[in-house]
Amino acid sequence: MRTLEELRGEMNYLNHALLALLSKRARVSTEVLAVKQRDNLPLHDPARELAMLEELAAANPGPFPDGTIKHLFSEIFRASVALMEQGQAKGLKVSRTRRAEPGVVTVGAVRIGAEPVVVAGPCAVESPEQMDMVARDLKRLGVTILRGGAFKPRSNPYAFQGLGEEGLRILRDTGKKYGMVTVTEVMDVRQIELVSAYADILQIGARNMHNYELLRELGTVKKPVILKRGFSATIEELLWAAEYIVGGGNEEVILCERGIRTFETQTRNTLDISAVPLLKQMSWLPVLVDVSHAAGRTDILAPLARAAIAAGADGVMVEVHPFPAVARSDSRQQLDIEQFAAFLRESDLLTGMRLAANDS
Amino acid sequence: MRTLEELRGEMNYLNHALLALLSKRARVSTEVLAVKQRDNLPLHDPARELAMLEELAAANPGPFPDGTIKHLFSEIFRASVALMEQGQAKGLKVSRTRRAEPGVVTVGAVRIGAEPVVVAGPCAVESPEQMDMVARDLKRLGVTILRGGAFKPRSNPYAFQGLGEEGLRILRDTGKKYGMVTVTEVMDVRQIELVSAYADILQIGARNMHNYELLRELGTVKKPVILKRGFSATIEELLWAAEYIVGGGNEEVILCERGIRTFETQTRNTLDISAVPLLKQMSWLPVLVDVSHAAGRTDILAPLARAAIAAGADGVMVEVHPFPAVARSDSRQQLDIEQFAAFLRESDLLTGMRLAANDS
Amino acid sequence: MRTLEELRGEMNYLNHALLALLSKRARVSTEVLAVKQRDNLPLHDPARELAMLEELAAANPGPFPDGTIKHLFSEIFRASVALMEQGQAKGLKVSRTRRAEPGVVTVGAVRIGAEPVVVAGPCAVESPEQMDMVARDLKRLGVTILRGGAFKPRSNPYAFQGLGEEGLRILRDTGKKYGMVTVTEVMDVRQIELVSAYADILQIGARNMHNYELLRELGTVKKPVILKRGFSATIEELLWAAEYIVGGGNEEVILCERGIRTFETQTRNTLDISAVPLLKQMSWLPVLVDVSHAAGRTDILAPLARAAIAAGADGVMVEVHPFPAVARSDSRQQLDIEQFAAFLRESDLLTGMRLAANDS
Amino acid sequence: MRTLEELRGEMNYLNHALLALLSKRARVSTEVLAVKQRDNLPLHDPARELAMLEELAAANPGPFPDGTIKHLFSEIFRASVALMEQGQAKGLKVSRTRRAEPGVVTVGAVRIGAEPVVVAGPCAVESPEQMDMVARDLKRLGVTILRGGAFKPRSNPYAFQGLGEEGLRILRDTGKKYGMVTVTEVMDVRQIELVSAYADILQIGARNMHNYELLRELGTVKKPVILKRGFSATIEELLWAAEYIVGGGNEEVILCERGIRTFETQTRNTLDISAVPLLKQMSWLPVLVDVSHAAGRTDILAPLARAAIAAGADGVMVEVHPFPAVARSDSRQQLDIEQFAAFLRESDLLTGMRLAANDS
Repeated sequence: MRTLEELRGEMNYLNHALLALLSKRARVSTEVLAVKQRDNLPLHDPARELAMLEELAAANPGPFPDGTIKHLFSEIFRASVALMEQGQAKGLKVSRTRRAEPGVVTVGAVRIGAEPVVVAGPCAVESPEQMDMVARDLKRLGVTILRGGAFKPRSNPYAFQGLGEEGLRILRDTGKKYGMVTVTEVMDVRQIELVSAYADILQIGARNMHNYELLRELGTVKKPVILKRGFSATIEELLWAAEYIVGGGNEEVILCERGIRTFETQTRNTLDISAVPLLKQMSWLPVLVDVSHAAGRTDILAPLARAAIAAGADGVMVEVHPFPAVARSDSRQQLDIEQFAAFLRESDLLTGMRLAANDS
Repeated sequence: MRTLEELRGEMNYLNHALLALLSKRARVSTEVLAVKQRDNLPLHDPARELAMLEELAAANPGPFPDGTIKHLFSEIFRASVALMEQGQAKGLKVSRTRRAEPGVVTVGAVRIGAEPVVVAGPCAVESPEQMDMVARDLKRLGVTILRGGAFKPRSNPYAFQGLGEEGLRILRDTGKKYGMVTVTEVMDVRQIELVSAYADILQIGARNMHNYELLRELGTVKKPVILKRGFSATIEELLWAAEYIVGGGNEEVILCERGIRTFETQTRNTLDISAVPLLKQMSWLPVLVDVSHAAGRTDILAPLARAAIAAGADGVMVEVHPFPAVARSDSRQQLDIEQFAAFLRESDLLTGMRLAANDS
Repeated sequence: MRTLEELRGEMNYLNHALLALLSKRARVSTEVLAVKQRDNLPLHDPARELAMLEELAAANPGPFPDGTIKHLFSEIFRASVALMEQGQAKGLKVSRTRRAEPGVVTVGAVRIGAEPVVVAGPCAVESPEQMDMVARDLKRLGVTILRGGAFKPRSNPYAFQGLGEEGLRILRDTGKKYGMVTVTEVMDVRQIELVSAYADILQIGARNMHNYELLRELGTVKKPVILKRGFSATIEELLWAAEYIVGGGNEEVILCERGIRTFETQTRNTLDISAVPLLKQMSWLPVLVDVSHAAGRTDILAPLARAAIAAGADGVMVEVHPFPAVARSDSRQQLDIEQFAAFLRESDLLTGMRLAANDS
Repeated sequence: MRTLEELRGEMNYLNHALLALLSKRARVSTEVLAVKQRDNLPLHDPARELAMLEELAAANPGPFPDGTIKHLFSEIFRASVALMEQGQAKGLKVSRTRRAEPGVVTVGAVRIGAEPVVVAGPCAVESPEQMDMVARDLKRLGVTILRGGAFKPRSNPYAFQGLGEEGLRILRDTGKKYGMVTVTEVMDVRQIELVSAYADILQIGARNMHNYELLRELGTVKKPVILKRGFSATIEELLWAAEYIVGGGNEEVILCERGIRTFETQTRNTLDISAVPLLKQMSWLPVLVDVSHAAGRTDILAPLARAAIAAGADGVMVEVHPFPAVARSDSRQQLDIEQFAAFLRESDLLTGMRLAANDS
């Protein structure tokens, strides 16, 4: 039996030989890719890989069983594919590797991504009076972005579905009156033109994050888009969804974490706070946190907003209604104005906003 | 101190008095509803409820604290609202309470809901040859419904998105040649007309179960729809989604359980087998189980199919490809023909289908 | 630029060279392992691996960046480690690769794993009368295994915790009177001896599946153990937990799937039906399904039991109480006798049991 | 048809009549409870409730169907029971309603709950040298609490299980040398005495949060306990688990959120940040966040720690190892010293600790 030292010497030699061969193989791969791209051939050829695996297994001298050889070469192929996909992922337009600087979406005087923002307003636009009341107070408290739904995606087909174009008009008029940027949801490709005519920022709700045709159309629109994470979408899927828009030519995308579905019932969803630093690290897109939909209750919004900002979020979204108890939707998770003022104080967002407001 | 017997006698008396009052209150509620429906007023008036709660709390003689009184009356109000909603839910067109008999969707010789069906075919239509090979074998094995995607919803915007209209044409021609019913996915309102011109049954994928505008449009279409459960949709949300279609006038909806997202990684999704008896009990719509998407692997499809049928499902969906290893999508979860023949034998579905085939 | 054919030829050559090198490296690994096992040295040497990775990266000629080389060699190292661990996993005593034949646990006339069994009885032993009523009827209906908790793990420290030793005595006496095998839960290492003195089969509840000290102790006990899956344990973790017992010398372990925690609220847990074929495929241990804890309701137990058997389970567990409404725990999920008789009829379990009963 | 006004008048009258009756009924309930407590009778009598429901349904004059009447009275009964249980929950010793002031656990110079603390150290105690290296640096950086596992709960029964008593001795000696408070895990009732003899704080790992016998024993111990949330335990279950200890007489319990199991795979667990404000609001116990186990990766620990503190946590736990790459467990999630120093800077925890250190 050889000594451990002898064996290690040989192992070392073999490792370096493998290094040389893998490097050589990579160089050939690069050439293959170049040819394929020139001739517009598919990069990945699973049938050929399959054949190669069979051939290598047939030639296997042991001691590995054939299955092991197939496994090891699958790993090498997969590593190559992973490298290519990683290259492609690095090549994703939303990827941080493509743009080191964090993106800033500028709408009027508001610069999302440059300073913490608060997006506030009711779940749904219900009447001119409701919007006027809430906007007046939000403005007074330093909020610059007003939200309100005109088209509401509702599980129940017979529930209040929003005021539609009338709601859009109310939102636009209120925003104009108080000098606020407006955000509202678009649910369908056929609504894009209409909503774009009224609102400053379009929102894609959690239910539509996987609606790829809608995302694709938004790539051609000249409006910023707030893209909410689907309630059981992975972080990677959220980035792919953003790529549908950015890849289509619209770079003004703002991601929004709003909680995911888990077994915990104290909160409506579980705010995935780790998503904030991960998204900021993986992408240059600004990231908001919708604390209202995450919590589904009003009593822990301030700590959640503090946590969101501390984790690196570019702002928070929060639902505010003049009289939450009589709201036509989501009445349990909306703050009234007094609660919202307390929320701003406790979340340390007030000072930041005041200062930002004074700057402009 | 009074005896337990005395106290129980009094409690009994009070319960009956409460019964009388609640019944009386219910009668008045009924009258209120009638007036409101006549005058087209909103049924639910949260502001008024709020005021009533405050007033009752103000009049509270004790020993309950005010909060308790508010809580108890909220319960009574909520019970009333629940009753109304329950009435409305019972009134849901998809509800079993509205139609005791299980629904049957008839397409050509196939009667989904009347006898176990197998929907089989590749994930995506890739070429005329691929479809011909797979359809010939499926037909031979007794399968009557052929699936194949022409529009593929893909997380990665740069991945293969399906052949589009060319794929639809191949699917239609293959179906015609072998006398099979065809199913394919529709992803967007703008594709409905096109897809309807080619396919016998439209499919809504898991990602679009919450795409309410798409569902609404399908209510006006004269084609059966297979509606897949969203990968983190609740059973109740699936029924609401179906109501969007059925409520719009299209009663030919087939529900499909295809697994939900959980922490378990051995399977791609967790097949929620309990959903099958629950859906059958709550609704008259037929229920299929997509074993391929649930498992995301090929080695447990037969036991899952047996379990699905045993739990009361009206059939299963399964992905079959002539050469899974070279499939352009989902290559790991598609069966080849030989595996599919074994699947049919092991799942006891072959006999049932043969018999059904002989009947026709 | 070389042609694709030329490049493929070279790639083919390089693949075979890699095959030769990897095979050679595997042979050296085998020698290293032999030396280490002889000298009783640890097999895995992360520090050395780390140093090797650094050295290889330093020698990297390109075109791969250093990170890629480290990644590829990590894959090769990991593949080796995976092979060893796979060897070790195959070597797990619970693994099907170690014993092709399904295991059978024999207790008296009952042979779990050989024919479908029904384990039935109340959640908790409450009184001799309660146990006598339920056992008499279960016996009459063909049930051979009687369950009942004497030590109850309760979230609420002030809730009913079971009758303790008195409960054990009642269970034993009832089992003896009706000639039934008894099962009851053990929660703590200090209860093992006591419970073993009274019951035929010990049960480990979901909450204790990760209680490794308890599992380890059960490896030395001469009683069969029903091991329930933790409510968020993976399938792999369940098998590792079983290995704690089997590895300790007690091979009479019966696995039990009882639902996992998900977002769905219609059922108390989500029955992971895929776990049944996966566990049967990965291990030789018998597998039961506890339909009562999975559903948490009584109206879908028959279809779930049918599905469990169809998926390959060796039996079901179900909670039956003479008067569920007054049960001291889990009152909503227990069947009364009449419901249980219907359950047996509808789940097709009756015939099997009758036949089995007649055999003995 | 009467007018809406008339109907509302009558409804108002009926509501007040119901108020009077419910109040009267509550007074009788109070008397019943007093009698039952005096005579030591069970408070809850489900059989009697059942009988009452049947009797009321039999007497139901309509228009509600019998099921509705049963439902409404169940609600009233349940509301009563809820009130009692709420009373009991308020009565939970861990509840904030029982003690308005946040609790402070004092160990030596460290006051957990009074100022942010950092608990740091390796996953497992491996050798005196390893502990000395890491403790020296942690001390220099201001850390006052040193963690290290001597008994390691491992899924794999054949994996490294910790050094046992030798590990305890190393931990104690290292803590003594550097004047640091020590924390280590106890996994079994039989280890309590031993571990208590060596460590300053006992830790209950996530896997044992449901091990009620262990929790109960800790109620009698004179050592602080860090109680980790089970990886799929609800917030409520965590509080019940704490009640097992506090109710037994040991009030020095520190809760620890460490992530829950979800479908997201970018992180090992999903840090449930909402649990922090909820636990602080529901209980007076201090709350830590274990960022290492939540993330399972090292690159987002600083933002997670900032978020934890911002959400109101009393400190964080983080795994630090002199050479993570060669750690015997959890090597991917441990920081090295340099990374840990950066972590402290970026998480703004350094200043707080320095100041706290200077104070003492």
